[in-house]
Amino acid sequence: MSSRKKIFNDPVYGFVSVPRGILLDLIDHPYFQRLRRIRQLGLSSYVYPGALHTRFHHALGALHLMQEAIETLRQKGVDISPEEAEGACAAILLHDIGHGPFSHALEHSLAAMHHEELSHLFMEALNREFNGQLSLAISIFRDEYPKKFLHQLVSGQLDMDRMDYLNRDSFFTGVSEGVIGYDRIIKMLAVHEGELVVEEKGIYSIEKFLIARRLMYWQVYLHKTGVAAEKMLIHALRRARELSLSGVELEVPRHLGWFLFRQSGDAASTEELLSHFSKLDDNDLTAAVKYWSEAEDFTLSFLSRGLLDRKLFRLEWHPEPVDQAYAQGIREGVAAIWGPMAILDHLVYTGSESNRAYNDTKEQIKILFKNGQVKPIDQCSDVPMYTQLVTKYFICYPKDSAR
Amino acid sequence: MSSRKKIFNDPVYGFVSVPRGILLDLIDHPYFQRLRRIRQLGLSSYVYPGALHTRFHHALGALHLMQEAIETLRQKGVDISPEEAEGACAAILLHDIGHGPFSHALEHSLAAMHHEELSHLFMEALNREFNGQLSLAISIFRDEYPKKFLHQLVSGQLDMDRMDYLNRDSFFTGVSEGVIGYDRIIKMLAVHEGELVVEEKGIYSIEKFLIARRLMYWQVYLHKTGVAAEKMLIHALRRARELSLSGVELEVPRHLGWFLFRQSGDAASTEELLSHFSKLDDNDLTAAVKYWSEAEDFTLSFLSRGLLDRKLFRLEWHPEPVDQAYAQGIREGVAAIWGPMAILDHLVYTGSESNRAYNDTKEQIKILFKNGQVKPIDQCSDVPMYTQLVTKYFICYPKDSAR
Amino acid sequence: MSSRKKIFNDPVYGFVSVPRGILLDLIDHPYFQRLRRIRQLGLSSYVYPGALHTRFHHALGALHLMQEAIETLRQKGVDISPEEAEGACAAILLHDIGHGPFSHALEHSLAAMHHEELSHLFMEALNREFNGQLSLAISIFRDEYPKKFLHQLVSGQLDMDRMDYLNRDSFFTGVSEGVIGYDRIIKMLAVHEGELVVEEKGIYSIEKFLIARRLMYWQVYLHKTGVAAEKMLIHALRRARELSLSGVELEVPRHLGWFLFRQSGDAASTEELLSHFSKLDDNDLTAAVKYWSEAEDFTLSFLSRGLLDRKLFRLEWHPEPVDQAYAQGIREGVAAIWGPMAILDHLVYTGSESNRAYNDTKEQIKILFKNGQVKPIDQCSDVPMYTQLVTKYFICYPKDSAR
Amino acid sequence: MSSRKKIFNDPVYGFVSVPRGILLDLIDHPYFQRLRRIRQLGLSSYVYPGALHTRFHHALGALHLMQEAIETLRQKGVDISPEEAEGACAAILLHDIGHGPFSHALEHSLAAMHHEELSHLFMEALNREFNGQLSLAISIFRDEYPKKFLHQLVSGQLDMDRMDYLNRDSFFTGVSEGVIGYDRIIKMLAVHEGELVVEEKGIYSIEKFLIARRLMYWQVYLHKTGVAAEKMLIHALRRARELSLSGVELEVPRHLGWFLFRQSGDAASTEELLSHFSKLDDNDLTAAVKYWSEAEDFTLSFLSRGLLDRKLFRLEWHPEPVDQAYAQGIREGVAAIWGPMAILDHLVYTGSESNRAYNDTKEQIKILFKNGQVKPIDQCSDVPMYTQLVTKYFICYPKDSAR
Repeated sequence: MSSRKKIFNDPVYGFVSVPRGILLDLIDHPYFQRLRRIRQLGLSSYVYPGALHTRFHHALGALHLMQEAIETLRQKGVDISPEEAEGACAAILLHDIGHGPFSHALEHSLAAMHHEELSHLFMEALNREFNGQLSLAISIFRDEYPKKFLHQLVSGQLDMDRMDYLNRDSFFTGVSEGVIGYDRIIKMLAVHEGELVVEEKGIYSIEKFLIARRLMYWQVYLHKTGVAAEKMLIHALRRARELSLSGVELEVPRHLGWFLFRQSGDAASTEELLSHFSKLDDNDLTAAVKYWSEAEDFTLSFLSRGLLDRKLFRLEWHPEPVDQAYAQGIREGVAAIWGPMAILDHLVYTGSESNRAYNDTKEQIKILFKNGQVKPIDQCSDVPMYTQLVTKYFICYPKDSAR
Repeated sequence: MSSRKKIFNDPVYGFVSVPRGILLDLIDHPYFQRLRRIRQLGLSSYVYPGALHTRFHHALGALHLMQEAIETLRQKGVDISPEEAEGACAAILLHDIGHGPFSHALEHSLAAMHHEELSHLFMEALNREFNGQLSLAISIFRDEYPKKFLHQLVSGQLDMDRMDYLNRDSFFTGVSEGVIGYDRIIKMLAVHEGELVVEEKGIYSIEKFLIARRLMYWQVYLHKTGVAAEKMLIHALRRARELSLSGVELEVPRHLGWFLFRQSGDAASTEELLSHFSKLDDNDLTAAVKYWSEAEDFTLSFLSRGLLDRKLFRLEWHPEPVDQAYAQGIREGVAAIWGPMAILDHLVYTGSESNRAYNDTKEQIKILFKNGQVKPIDQCSDVPMYTQLVTKYFICYPKDSAR
Repeated sequence: MSSRKKIFNDPVYGFVSVPRGILLDLIDHPYFQRLRRIRQLGLSSYVYPGALHTRFHHALGALHLMQEAIETLRQKGVDISPEEAEGACAAILLHDIGHGPFSHALEHSLAAMHHEELSHLFMEALNREFNGQLSLAISIFRDEYPKKFLHQLVSGQLDMDRMDYLNRDSFFTGVSEGVIGYDRIIKMLAVHEGELVVEEKGIYSIEKFLIARRLMYWQVYLHKTGVAAEKMLIHALRRARELSLSGVELEVPRHLGWFLFRQSGDAASTEELLSHFSKLDDNDLTAAVKYWSEAEDFTLSFLSRGLLDRKLFRLEWHPEPVDQAYAQGIREGVAAIWGPMAILDHLVYTGSESNRAYNDTKEQIKILFKNGQVKPIDQCSDVPMYTQLVTKYFICYPKDSAR
Repeated sequence: MSSRKKIFNDPVYGFVSVPRGILLDLIDHPYFQRLRRIRQLGLSSYVYPGALHTRFHHALGALHLMQEAIETLRQKGVDISPEEAEGACAAILLHDIGHGPFSHALEHSLAAMHHEELSHLFMEALNREFNGQLSLAISIFRDEYPKKFLHQLVSGQLDMDRMDYLNRDSFFTGVSEGVIGYDRIIKMLAVHEGELVVEEKGIYSIEKFLIARRLMYWQVYLHKTGVAAEKMLIHALRRARELSLSGVELEVPRHLGWFLFRQSGDAASTEELLSHFSKLDDNDLTAAVKYWSEAEDFTLSFLSRGLLDRKLFRLEWHPEPVDQAYAQGIREGVAAIWGPMAILDHLVYTGSESNRAYNDTKEQIKILFKNGQVKPIDQCSDVPMYTQLVTKYFICYPKDSAR
């Protein structure tokens, strides 16, 4: 008596069931298994030691929520065929398949491509391998399928990706304030003229969802220590590349080296790119940092040892762009201590981070009233939505240079 | 080896420890034990079947948080003497001691006094009984003690009362979205010029706290079914009083009868009032409703049976005061069915409920910056605060009368 | 777009969905609504202040688990028709419908009938009202239906009743050690030759379930303070009956009075019995205790005030029957203090309580191995099962009489 | 106003506070930061995808519990000086400092030393660096300090190590059945004649703790898939060593190579050993596996790819040593498929795993009765303890070779 489902343990939802068939086959594929080695929150574990969960676990969780959302909608009479359900499930399962190591910020330095494009490339490759079984999933993913709400469940204001990651990131960081009522929101979903809407009595849950998202951004995703670590890692990679281009030989895992040290003009087929990229994960960066912590170049080893031993730079948020004179003062202080040995531009950084809890410019959250009327949420709620773009400016530098 | 503390089980915090001495003596007093029979959320268990927790448990929880807040402040160097700590603990323990059965709404019909005044009367009585040991607690409770922050911990924008009830009500209703980061907020508390402030990095937690409070108001405390039940109960009491005044004899528990049936001109000493009030709890109202469900008067038994068997009235929220013609139509529909037997005014009600998540008119939440500066939160947060008064209007009537 | 299900909030499981139809109609019936006023754990809230949850909530939870168990079994290929599923669901929903106020211990004093017989009577009455729609449910409840496993899900070693109550009681008491892996156990259920079995890899979960049950018995259900309160309540009722039979008039809610004060020879039709019983709940006992706390009879008011103000008797556990001389000493001590006014037999009690975590004499837990073999669990586990009957003896008396 | 404590987020306990001073300095040391890169449960994340938590987080958690245990004991009048408290805290913080990558099983192959010896070496090195501040901690760790109970809190039947790891492993695996009442057990701890004992009413919690430990062993720590992965990793390392000794050049992170490829006769100073060992973590093994998955040697790349892509071997448990003929049959099946290319001994393994939930041979759990008497738990509990050694035998081989 073998069960028709495989069960995964998930401390967030208890169990996640996956039916045997294409969905389980996708999970077993090396492309998907790679996600076991890519953390959802990159370097955030420096701040939240429990935040080690992976994109693998997140994708399973999002699949679980997709199954719940489909069941809810069907119970409300929305027509979703078995093929469409499987397509939406495959699409959410693979939505992050193109994610590279550690963080969005490394995307451009490494692959010269956005992770959504890479996800699409991976899906196409898998579709060939699985003889076209993913065509429907791909058209949902790319918003080319007529039932628009299926795409919105995969990628939209209230998609299963966000539902899972807010919840999961809260769970593993221990920032209980990020917890959202994902189950309540899902139960309030409905479809109106082919688009996803939320029933009237779900308004408070949506407000809560938006404020939780805002909180998670500033308290977790853009936590100053995590941002500092990310900047340090980016500068370590840049410094390594500079050294390599100037002829210095550096230890580095092979596939990471392919991306890191190739000339900007180097041609590479999509196939070659995917082949290397599919071998890349968080481990390669950590291995490189460990190698480089013993490098001869001061700047490279200084940054790498900082990352290894958690001697992270200080990052200050400023409400306005950092005052030039202030920045110059810090640069001089750093130069006075490490100047002779170090490349100053790799030790002092300025920049900005922005976030908008609810970006209504591309798509709006719509509320369905009992009388059948539908309105954008900002015309329904009696509190203001969180649509403004919040920008914070930073300066980041080695801790002991502070005066 | 007897422990110096008594431990209470609390599913919300695990354990609550109470040191032997005045605090435990207060808990053991019949006045405090009465709170075991007064539910925190009144009639909300009609909507949330788990919401049966009592003011007894809430007061213990608030005491627990007070102990944590005091420890946090002391660690930051705030001077709080053992007597002051005990006083603040006693004050929070007794802050609800004057609560009557079921809900704020019954306060005026029953006792002609606000529960905070009653709490004060109870405290004075206990102070006499405990030979003045509560004098400091009372002065903190009444905001007459110089260290204002102690009062603010008992009753203020971020008091331990709110911290506990939001959390506890979330827990027992199962509305997980009401969960607040009470532990994080408490860890962010500080004292500046004698007043309670919040450290800068606690801003997001405060925003979250306010939105959670707003959500709990509309989703739980002012849930339409709970409000409908409350209105029905109030009208049952009024009808009983009418009948009694007109000479009909009605069964009713003795002490409830004292409040319900006495003439408005009846004089009563504070002592007499307290003596009756201290015998009153949720049970008396439920017992009355059970008696009255078998009463001869149609209106009284109709309301009482509705409450007993959960045949609750429908309540509609309207954004504006309910249209007169619309209300008249409903009244006529109800009259057509039950008119001949029933008093229409006890079957159809209109009115309004209001809530303001953050009422900054009396007191403001203040943020302490690293540089020592202090500002009101609405000058710090980059999202708008929830200061507006939200009012909703309702009409409430028997379900089967809807047309 | 009205949903085909009604959703109940449950802090234990998040949400419980009930399909519209007979199941929801049963829940809406006054007989079932009565369970809102009957606590699952009787007087345990004296010890665990959160333990106020009701049989209403428990029945909904058990229904939820039944739905999960049926889905699991169907996925493993077990044939369960929609009618059988509904029957099993109705049976578990109503399994406790005959429960009286507060506790098993009061069953005989009040109704002269076991609650399972009363449940059966209620079901028959409901079946008449619902035109025979409950016949299948009743045959499952009474183990008269051929597919025995359906009865075992309602009442057996691993029934949904136990799964829910262990879990729910843990949740509301805060005794986290009583938590069982109900979801894992349910996923491990299977059917072999018409009987419920557990898959091999569920053995550890079953061991854990049995030890958790044992722990809950001694730590919660038979906690000495809870048992003391129960004995006091029983003796208060007995004393009230004695007084009434001797002509003293006592206030008491009407339907409770019917049971309490009638002569043993009084005849009553089943209909009359049900009619009174269906109006009885925890409130009636509390109301009586409140009345009697002001009674003239010392014994009755002493016990009642003790229950009201939580001045509970001391209960000592002894591994052997309480030594006669020791008991006599205590009796004399009590007599010396309250003797002149009090009836000694109502102030000092001895007796015993027993529990067996796994009673394998009537039915055994059976394990299904991968090779298709089935064995009783005590032949499979490499640790001993908890089959022995554990008995503890007690003496219980007013606290201040201890010397 | 800088706080005297640093706060770590922990989803298990909410927050963990560490006082500034030696404890925080230890945490900041690179030796301790290394534990961020060593998972608590080695390869268990193949089975439980959430089980990625590290020894770093575990050590912080155990420190947290130690602080609670000390506070509890002090409240019961046990004399513990500030220096002793700090010593016990430092000892528990460092108890795992010598742990190598992934698992106990690798200990001998890599370092020829037990992790407790290595922990001691690290402590001595740190003690030198911190000018003897750790001497008291070391004497507690090595059970040389007169107050034996301090050592028992660090390493004993009920030490804070076990309390934390059972709890934490339950949390991150999602195996909720492993949850123990750590807070209740800690509250029941006492000291009698210098030794740690448990108060009488904690007996059920201890039973529960032992059965939860047993469950975690067989369900998590010795889960067949996790054990299979571990065996595969050990054989990959052995194969790499064989190849290296025979002159094949293999990519491998430097410090791992030092351990893996050195001759058994190679002399190395303790200093040299520590210097390499302190640079070793889980990453080095993963990096090696990634390199070797592209190695030319079939056996090495087969094992490595299996680990990388989660094509794990099948492991069968047998109650008796695996039947020779049966094992031979499997070997032949494997040989028939991969024989020509592969080293059979690295593809088929037999062996055994044992566990004893309560090993009372070295130390016993002792119960303190109210009358002051102390007895070993097996003389107090009315159920049998779990003292027997349970051994299971296994055979492990590539999945597709099954016939």
